[in-house]
Amino acid sequence: METTQHRQIKLGAFFLIPGHHIAAWRHPDAEASSVMDLKLYQKLAQTAERGRFDMIFLADSYSVSNRYPAAIEQIVSARPEPLTLLSALASVTEHIGLAATASTTYNEPFHVARKFASLDHLSGGRAAWNVVTSKYDEEAMNFGGQTHLQHGLRYERAEEFVRAVTGLWDSWEDDAFLYDKASAKYADRAKAHPPNHQGPWFSVMGPLNVPRPLQGHPVVVQAGASEPGRELAARTAEVIFTAWPALREAQRFYADMKARAAKYGRSPASLLIMPGVFPVIGRTREEAEHKRAALNSLVPVEAGVTLLSALLGMDLTGYDVDGPLPELPGVEEMNGGRSRHQLVKALAAEGMTIRQLYQRIAGGRGHLELTGTPAEIADTLEEWFVSGAADGFNIMPPYFPGGLNDFVELVVPELQKRGLFRKEYEGTTLRDRLGLARPVHPAVRARMTESSGAR
Amino acid sequence: METTQHRQIKLGAFFLIPGHHIAAWRHPDAEASSVMDLKLYQKLAQTAERGRFDMIFLADSYSVSNRYPAAIEQIVSARPEPLTLLSALASVTEHIGLAATASTTYNEPFHVARKFASLDHLSGGRAAWNVVTSKYDEEAMNFGGQTHLQHGLRYERAEEFVRAVTGLWDSWEDDAFLYDKASAKYADRAKAHPPNHQGPWFSVMGPLNVPRPLQGHPVVVQAGASEPGRELAARTAEVIFTAWPALREAQRFYADMKARAAKYGRSPASLLIMPGVFPVIGRTREEAEHKRAALNSLVPVEAGVTLLSALLGMDLTGYDVDGPLPELPGVEEMNGGRSRHQLVKALAAEGMTIRQLYQRIAGGRGHLELTGTPAEIADTLEEWFVSGAADGFNIMPPYFPGGLNDFVELVVPELQKRGLFRKEYEGTTLRDRLGLARPVHPAVRARMTESSGAR
Repeated sequence: METTQHRQIKLGAFFLIPGHHIAAWRHPDAEASSVMDLKLYQKLAQTAERGRFDMIFLADSYSVSNRYPAAIEQIVSARPEPLTLLSALASVTEHIGLAATASTTYNEPFHVARKFASLDHLSGGRAAWNVVTSKYDEEAMNFGGQTHLQHGLRYERAEEFVRAVTGLWDSWEDDAFLYDKASAKYADRAKAHPPNHQGPWFSVMGPLNVPRPLQGHPVVVQAGASEPGRELAARTAEVIFTAWPALREAQRFYADMKARAAKYGRSPASLLIMPGVFPVIGRTREEAEHKRAALNSLVPVEAGVTLLSALLGMDLTGYDVDGPLPELPGVEEMNGGRSRHQLVKALAAEGMTIRQLYQRIAGGRGHLELTGTPAEIADTLEEWFVSGAADGFNIMPPYFPGGLNDFVELVVPELQKRGLFRKEYEGTTLRDRLGLARPVHPAVRARMTESSGAR
Repeated sequence: METTQHRQIKLGAFFLIPGHHIAAWRHPDAEASSVMDLKLYQKLAQTAERGRFDMIFLADSYSVSNRYPAAIEQIVSARPEPLTLLSALASVTEHIGLAATASTTYNEPFHVARKFASLDHLSGGRAAWNVVTSKYDEEAMNFGGQTHLQHGLRYERAEEFVRAVTGLWDSWEDDAFLYDKASAKYADRAKAHPPNHQGPWFSVMGPLNVPRPLQGHPVVVQAGASEPGRELAARTAEVIFTAWPALREAQRFYADMKARAAKYGRSPASLLIMPGVFPVIGRTREEAEHKRAALNSLVPVEAGVTLLSALLGMDLTGYDVDGPLPELPGVEEMNGGRSRHQLVKALAAEGMTIRQLYQRIAGGRGHLELTGTPAEIADTLEEWFVSGAADGFNIMPPYFPGGLNDFVELVVPELQKRGLFRKEYEGTTLRDRLGLARPVHPAVRARMTESSGAR
């Protein structure tokens, strides 16, 4: 489909209530107390759908950060479980994709396969799974462990986890269920294919007790930028969420990932690269800059230092906030979130103080930050899109609902005017919108090969 | 609340698409292909809400039965994951409770606590958790095991699991989140109470990354009828779903459970007993009996024998279906579903043939079966309700949507006319409707005790 059509930008709406800026909850227009309020999420989902976004995206972690001083007091730590929320949103939307995060380190393939397959059916083919391996020791301590599984092992487990899940999704051929009342045949046993997965990490017999997902497989999303993260994504991901503050690095990553995909026999269009974007939108440049400064002024020093400490895995309390970042431990000693760590280190090398650093990351946390008019923001998105840095973007509004409304009302029309973004939804499933092929069932593929070989 | 009010029947709507009768999918009016169809579930949820049901209930298991011949071909084996479905239904209902099953044998307390807390917030205080320990070896084989955990150990694990989950729900006091923009205080750290649970089965630090549920704790439901199942329920359950085909046994169970609850210092009204009821409703007795016979005629012999084999854990293929049940293994050798096993054994002792047995259980599977007019059905429900056998009923329509419509349109008005059932919803949460107290946070209780001791 994609090949005959004009290539267009893909857009994700990254929901994080009350907003992506760390001080969003203090913004006068932010609904600070609405983290668990379904009515707000429903309104936001409908706004995103009105803006023709490809999908809503929900990040996740399985712990409350409490290691650094301001963590609980000044930073929003609670979130609804993403699949629970997205199912609720499936009922009040019709077209938009629903992408939830689930970790391969603290879950079982059977549950993950079943939940995403269920969401895919109930939403009419709109589910996506963001595969993560988790980051924090605090998460391990909520699941019987004391420390987080070592980085390399996490990715070994993740790779096998994804394999087990796709095997479960293929438990049944698409037409395995017959519902034939007259002959009393509910299902065709010959079209059941229990995966019987046996590996070092998992043993899963199957079949899954859900029919094959409407999309064949829900769309697989990943975000890791480390070497094993990139390899896993090149083999198994269809969308990559990624964080690059500047064009050159984003282009390098884009080229690298497309080349890796090719190495596994995949076409460039089968792996979409979608960097995160933190947009502060004003009708004039001055209004936008004023908005950005107002948000930064709302960050209490303790919250800023805590944010930076958590991101670096090193307590910065007691250092002069207007002085430089102290010597950091090498990235080899990090066990989680390595790519962000390197990003902050690069910024510190440019001479930023601790205060400047935390203000710099208080919004986009290392993603591309754009402060300007709708036309200026569209200019940069277009530049990234046409110059081999992005197939689309994951939009991270500074606060909700205002920041999302601004994007939908001001930036989306600008992109549409330029022919860069859809005016109406195409097809019916998330795959249709993203231009991703529906995976053919392995048993069907095998029969096709066999019959073409016999000719 | 309950004490000042007239005692009324509580009703659960047990959703099992296309129906509770094993041949429901072959019924001319059943929507056989709609097991994963959100639109049907939405319609059913709204019907149940129109009928003023206390809650929708979803059972669950984590496997497809494939051990006996007709399992895949003739019996419905796939279901949406219950929490995924109930969240979607939360969006299109306002009042009705949402009770989902999650097993303590194949889950982690953190995930279960988080999902039900999320559903409770998103639904405005309508979540309930049906605690089960699972039944089948096939389930173990989907989670790395070969055989199911032994019965006694399963209940040890379940008891600790429930304790860990309630600890996680109490991670925060009700007013821990301040959202105070001016003073930059999002949360009061002194009101965070990480459970730091350490036990033989689980180690969970906490706190949960979701605020305390609106109901304090989602309502806890259980269904086990074995000795350890009863003890667990007496200590921790607030609603018991149970299966009794006749009044006397139901009364015995009811009295036993209320006495066990008293032993743990609980009031009788804090533990509601709700037997399952399989109603076949006709405008005349003849019409109802004709409906029942028509459903039975739709059961293929293989499916009937498979149902009975699965229930007894013994392959009955090859036995004369019009002959008696062969000698069964002792219940001590069973590792799952012991109570149903005893039930069938009792029926066989009355001289029923294999065909009669599977027809007998093809609908209610051992629950109370009522075939008759709305008045006759209301008579029996009333009798059970006033004679110490039930506080309410879990209604199991033979097929959907017809069987549920019949109950809502014909039986509910009859119960309302008799003053036995609500005409409008009372309060706002599921606890309000069930007359169950909202659990006071342990830290608040401790402070209350302290201050009353100081007086």
